[in-house]
Amino acid sequence: MAADNFKLTLHMVSSLDGFIAKKDNSVSWFETSSYYKKGVAGQDAETFLKTIDCYVMGARTYEHAVALSASYGWAYGDTPTIVVTNRILPAERKNIEFYSGDLNVLVNERLKPNYNNVWVAGGAILAKELLQLQLTDEIRVTILPVILGDGLLFFNHIGLEQALHLKDVTAYKNGMVELCYAFKKE
Amino acid sequence: MAADNFKLTLHMVSSLDGFIAKKDNSVSWFETSSYYKKGVAGQDAETFLKTIDCYVMGARTYEHAVALSASYGWAYGDTPTIVVTNRILPAERKNIEFYSGDLNVLVNERLKPNYNNVWVAGGAILAKELLQLQLTDEIRVTILPVILGDGLLFFNHIGLEQALHLKDVTAYKNGMVELCYAFKKE
Repeated sequence: MAADNFKLTLHMVSSLDGFIAKKDNSVSWFETSSYYKKGVAGQDAETFLKTIDCYVMGARTYEHAVALSASYGWAYGDTPTIVVTNRILPAERKNIEFYSGDLNVLVNERLKPNYNNVWVAGGAILAKELLQLQLTDEIRVTILPVILGDGLLFFNHIGLEQALHLKDVTAYKNGMVELCYAFKKE
Repeated sequence: MAADNFKLTLHMVSSLDGFIAKKDNSVSWFETSSYYKKGVAGQDAETFLKTIDCYVMGARTYEHAVALSASYGWAYGDTPTIVVTNRILPAERKNIEFYSGDLNVLVNERLKPNYNNVWVAGGAILAKELLQLQLTDEIRVTILPVILGDGLLFFNHIGLEQALHLKDVTAYKNGMVELCYAFKKE
């Protein structure tokens, strides 16, 4: 049964102070210049990304990814990508679908029967709803070596306490740290 | 010259979503029940704490530490402890001093000539001022395996972007992760 292997992972890339975007949406802060001798190189992360069989993202994250694709290419390859939105947006690629409605239905009826390793690529609004509905199995937080001081918070007072289980910690040579937690299910 | 070895470290213990206190000030969430097989035991942290020769904290952190000391003992031992406050507070122990005024003067005239390894134990207001004045050499963030969902944020929009250099990452058996960064001085 596919559902047994199903995993919904929430991913965020943030500054140490928890921001996922600057007010002006500029992304140069992603290019950090720290060097951490004990860190690992980035290849592990790339191998890992290949195991993702579906991406889910909010409308603003999608629009931002589309804007960035002009300079950096489309970040999510040919992997099926579902954009959660109530708006009518253009599908920039063949592998983009749009979903509007109940997130429980999305996860249990649309994702679980079809995919194993679903990755929520943002943003903050979608993440907050998924966390509040306790639909997430795992959370991966990539912390960049910078304090931004202002911007869009990833965790914006979700209002629900949830115990986590630390699964993995990876420090990269560029000073990025990735923390992976499973949600403890009661 | 003492100033060459001087280091002001800002320390925070927070939930994954960046909260350092719950609204009701209860502390049971500090006792996390995660188990991380690859983590190290806690002894390293204790050896490290002995190198601290002065603690600095805000008034609320002090009052909270005093309240907790009834059940858990005083957390900062006989190490000199300076409480930054404009209020008149009782000194609960001989090694407590109070300071009111300019934080530049505190750091450069009071701390630098007398101590090497000064540890700022909180809270959020004092940390924000020290960060804004760029008086901090190092920041240590201890992340507990829990999402609190609400409470007092440590980094409350400090409004100043600052590049960091990752110095160390330690994962503990109990699922705590400690990240240590140096501030990049321009």
